[in-house]
Amino acid sequence: MTTEPTILESLDAAQRQQVDEQLQELTRGAVDVIPDGGLAERVAESVRDGRPLRIKAGFDPTAPDLHLGHAVLLQKLRQFQIAGHQVIFLIGDFTARIGDPTGRTETRPPLTAAEIDANAETYADQVFRILDRDKTEVRRNSEWLDAIPSDQWLRMASVMTVARMLEREDFSTRFRENRPIRVHEFMYPLIQGYDSVALDADVELGGTDQTFNLLVGRDMQKFHEQRQQVVLTMPLLEGLDGEQKMSKSYGNAVGILEDPSDQFGKLMSVSDDLMIRYYTLLSDRPGDEVAAAIEAGDLHPMDAKKELAAEIVGRFYDSAAADSARSGFENVFSHGDVPDDMPTAAWALADGPAWLPRIVADQDLAQSLSEARRLLKQGAIKVDGDPITEPGEIDQAGEYVVKVGKRRFLKLVVSD
Amino acid sequence: MTTEPTILESLDAAQRQQVDEQLQELTRGAVDVIPDGGLAERVAESVRDGRPLRIKAGFDPTAPDLHLGHAVLLQKLRQFQIAGHQVIFLIGDFTARIGDPTGRTETRPPLTAAEIDANAETYADQVFRILDRDKTEVRRNSEWLDAIPSDQWLRMASVMTVARMLEREDFSTRFRENRPIRVHEFMYPLIQGYDSVALDADVELGGTDQTFNLLVGRDMQKFHEQRQQVVLTMPLLEGLDGEQKMSKSYGNAVGILEDPSDQFGKLMSVSDDLMIRYYTLLSDRPGDEVAAAIEAGDLHPMDAKKELAAEIVGRFYDSAAADSARSGFENVFSHGDVPDDMPTAAWALADGPAWLPRIVADQDLAQSLSEARRLLKQGAIKVDGDPITEPGEIDQAGEYVVKVGKRRFLKLVVSD
Repeated sequence: MTTEPTILESLDAAQRQQVDEQLQELTRGAVDVIPDGGLAERVAESVRDGRPLRIKAGFDPTAPDLHLGHAVLLQKLRQFQIAGHQVIFLIGDFTARIGDPTGRTETRPPLTAAEIDANAETYADQVFRILDRDKTEVRRNSEWLDAIPSDQWLRMASVMTVARMLEREDFSTRFRENRPIRVHEFMYPLIQGYDSVALDADVELGGTDQTFNLLVGRDMQKFHEQRQQVVLTMPLLEGLDGEQKMSKSYGNAVGILEDPSDQFGKLMSVSDDLMIRYYTLLSDRPGDEVAAAIEAGDLHPMDAKKELAAEIVGRFYDSAAADSARSGFENVFSHGDVPDDMPTAAWALADGPAWLPRIVADQDLAQSLSEARRLLKQGAIKVDGDPITEPGEIDQAGEYVVKVGKRRFLKLVVSD
Repeated sequence: MTTEPTILESLDAAQRQQVDEQLQELTRGAVDVIPDGGLAERVAESVRDGRPLRIKAGFDPTAPDLHLGHAVLLQKLRQFQIAGHQVIFLIGDFTARIGDPTGRTETRPPLTAAEIDANAETYADQVFRILDRDKTEVRRNSEWLDAIPSDQWLRMASVMTVARMLEREDFSTRFRENRPIRVHEFMYPLIQGYDSVALDADVELGGTDQTFNLLVGRDMQKFHEQRQQVVLTMPLLEGLDGEQKMSKSYGNAVGILEDPSDQFGKLMSVSDDLMIRYYTLLSDRPGDEVAAAIEAGDLHPMDAKKELAAEIVGRFYDSAAADSARSGFENVFSHGDVPDDMPTAAWALADGPAWLPRIVADQDLAQSLSEARRLLKQGAIKVDGDPITEPGEIDQAGEYVVKVGKRRFLKLVVSD
């Protein structure tokens, strides 16, 4: 990171320190800052002039069920916000409304205005667990895109060449493999770029998969004789398995709206290395600081993990929820106890012996009866601490604690 | 050419003959009719229902100086018009106004509205020497393109794939040679296609170099659930040399606004084969009919050529101009005489001997003094029938006939 000497030289020592501190925080965990030194220059100017930077991040209102992977970007926005900059949460409703207009693929179904509103609401509900709602500028790109005159569309399209578009990795792959790319798909990066012009963005944030589109924003601003934004990219977050990227479909995700105890338990399951990574990308506390404390023997990894989990749960809910999730976890795992609160199921032996797979499935401790049967066979269902592998029937009245997998409990009351 | 049997069967004998006659005339000289049989079907319907077909041809208001090459298409439109169909003369002012918005190439400078108006006027002045102004629908595509909402632009772009666009010959060449193609250039064929939707075109005419764009019109109509137009392409006309395509820059063109005597003389200079070709593409009289008459000894090629020249001059001017050009030509070439009317130049020997190159250049019988000097050296300047090669000075008072090349004459009056 280098800064134009002229700007830094015009700052006093306190201001320089402020710039350094901001940069350290704002670039933490980032993959790329383009151009090199661009952010330093912009932050120095901001400090010198007392002008907040305009930080843009765009979101498709199509996948309102967010997880920690999405939170990486939001956490970075939060850091900009804490540093006093203006965060703009941009909802890409214009393109969402269009989807894939040919109707030949299911990948981008068009959304109605009502669906977009509903999704935006769900988005907001999750996003503002991380960002400060009062300090966030929420915009929709239909505000300006609906009003663009026809000739402006062609001028926008003129900014990029076909060859350069085909350099984008997904386009080049599809082109090479003779899979169709429709011309309007070339317009989407241009639109995203024009959004930067409309918002007069100083910085645009995105995932590494967005680098190409973010750079188009710089081209578009240059074409409109506007100062070019700084591009800051964040990595894709690894899932709980530490291997694949976090995704609901891989079953390795922590949902922002998940139960506090589930969030806590899942976060406690990650490896120590991944914990440091999560600190870096998701916590207010730098990962290298935590790693150093562990290395020095000042912090036990298990405690570091609990603190991380509590911080994240606390952000998505509140500190009471974090405390409760923590003590719930400690009861079950640290002390080997069963949790205080469990669902209760009842079974009357008049209906025959208590059929464990059915009960487990009915209580949603397994996704289906067949999964419950499989869990039973695998010895993953314990009754009062003993694995029951077959046939899973209890023919004595009494109270039993049924444990499914590592964290799911059930009190079973069997009566005559 | 095949017709859906159902339509032809529903016609009576007189109607069928009408369809056959129309088809023969309308397809004369055409390179392609797409789809095969499409025009026959449409004409048959037109005859059956008494509905004129809507015939679209688009023109860029950028090159208002038309020549016989442009007249090929106009002649075809004229034939549609004579057959009772509705010809739509579409001025592509929308794209002309945009030009190349990057400003990085000089190939498509944007035109102002005033320039477009002036060009359109000059166009009309030439076009309506061939088409019937009262029966022509003159439109500008800005009528509908200015009003297209933003999302419609993206929907338009979705109709075509990038790979298909790159199949267009000029695009594929540039792409292969790593010469830039800007994304908005992909929009131009789409715009032309959308024009067909806006005009509800039954048939679109164009040169063979337009085939790709004309076919996009069919795609665009299909996307808009409109019946797909028939595409009819005409060849590029060979110039007077019979080799290269007609173009002002090759010096082998006959301008629509050229002097009648120049038009006549130039047309008389073509080979007999090219004359038949010009008959086919530019005359109301079929080329094969003329060829047959010559073959049978019923028509002398020189007379056939004079008739063609007179027909064309008569169309661009009137029959009086054609007669006058014809007799002027016959005076000079057939009888070896000098024309009745020639420009006159005067020279006083008081200024020194009459300096031929200067006089020839001043009278615009050569493009410059240096060209006049070259013509003199080549023996292409005759005075009273004798070539003067050097030094080109006349020092005796009197009247002289100066002949430059084959057809340019000048009366030179030299006084003491």
